[in-house]
Amino acid sequence: MRLLLISNSTNAGEEYLSHPKENIREFLGDKKVTCLFIPYAAVTFSFDDYEKKVQDRFLQLGHDIRSIHKFLDPVQAIQEAEAIVIGGGNTWQLTRMMQENNLLDPLKEKIQNGTPYIGWSAGSNVACPTIKTTNDMPISQPLDFKVLGVIPFQINPHYLDANPEGHAGETREMRIEEFIEANPDIYVVGLREGTMLQLEEDKLNLTGPRKARIFKRGQAPIEVDPGSNINFLFE
Amino acid sequence: MRLLLISNSTNAGEEYLSHPKENIREFLGDKKVTCLFIPYAAVTFSFDDYEKKVQDRFLQLGHDIRSIHKFLDPVQAIQEAEAIVIGGGNTWQLTRMMQENNLLDPLKEKIQNGTPYIGWSAGSNVACPTIKTTNDMPISQPLDFKVLGVIPFQINPHYLDANPEGHAGETREMRIEEFIEANPDIYVVGLREGTMLQLEEDKLNLTGPRKARIFKRGQAPIEVDPGSNINFLFE
Repeated sequence: MRLLLISNSTNAGEEYLSHPKENIREFLGDKKVTCLFIPYAAVTFSFDDYEKKVQDRFLQLGHDIRSIHKFLDPVQAIQEAEAIVIGGGNTWQLTRMMQENNLLDPLKEKIQNGTPYIGWSAGSNVACPTIKTTNDMPISQPLDFKVLGVIPFQINPHYLDANPEGHAGETREMRIEEFIEANPDIYVVGLREGTMLQLEEDKLNLTGPRKARIFKRGQAPIEVDPGSNINFLFE
Repeated sequence: MRLLLISNSTNAGEEYLSHPKENIREFLGDKKVTCLFIPYAAVTFSFDDYEKKVQDRFLQLGHDIRSIHKFLDPVQAIQEAEAIVIGGGNTWQLTRMMQENNLLDPLKEKIQNGTPYIGWSAGSNVACPTIKTTNDMPISQPLDFKVLGVIPFQINPHYLDANPEGHAGETREMRIEEFIEANPDIYVVGLREGTMLQLEEDKLNLTGPRKARIFKRGQAPIEVDPGSNINFLFE
């Protein structure tokens, strides 16, 4: 499998999809690739607008996208795709629409057969076994929390270390500690903004300017450096 | 109905259940009340510990609690309760356990018949029609997102206005804007820390040192002052 699972589209103060642009370019290679784009995480803007925004960026990188909502047969579009891209937004809406359109199995099969997959934020969440480590508000009820499961561990995108000063709500770490208490056999990768996981064949790599924080029940959280071997997440 | 729906147990830098203590005391009245406590939102600590922590506080206020996990027949415990208290923690775990133990209908009936209800954080979330405006991580999958529905609007507890500096993830307002887009007919009350809603007979009141921010689709968010009439939320 070939996966590029990005924490976030946009760093604070930067342009849309700016921080991962070289990673996306290299991941897709020198030859122009037209990716199938899944825009279903968009809630407060249209799929057309989402397609345009992402397409503008991909064209700058020498690649292109076409959104699945423009195809008459979305399953066929998946089966014929050169690469799959799922963008961020609301993970719940994304999951529900993929389930209602019966796209999870075709997507999983396609990705497992080696078609490159790029996701950011909600698009990284749905690569996991479930959406149980999303940060998003559960604005719509999906049929099930199970999603693609092309990796055996959970990602928490936009991982952040502290609340705003004076706020007493749970920190992200406290939330993940609840997750591992209720789900003891699975790793969670707290993927900080600006970073991503890349899987090439059997090698999993953390890329970006910051460490990732990895949680599992019964273990103290560990910080891993960009570039270090994190294949233990597949154990 | 009599409801006291509190945003959060604890303000930053204060003791547990300190900010709402006078409100709880007055809400329960001069005569000692022993409340039935539902501790199911606890994930990383035991129900016994949770009962003890809340009991210590209620005893200081001249009242008492007993946790539902100590009763042989939880439905009977609800039916015989003088008052109901649901504490914070993880809304998903709380919802799932209430559903699995078939407690939602007995609780709803009991509260609608006038038994005083106090909730904070997750305990305020489950008074709403659904848990779709929780901030909590969906660590376990409930049978359904529907909960008590003793009020017709949604509460977002621990409402906060900004992300930590440098963090680009969705703000709370962006998340609630997604909710109202997907759920256009319902109000959301962004209930800031230190504040609460109190319903007495037919009068709904905001109490505490901060305004609440109220959202509905097609309207600009409005800020309401403590003490102002917010009965329009029942329309």
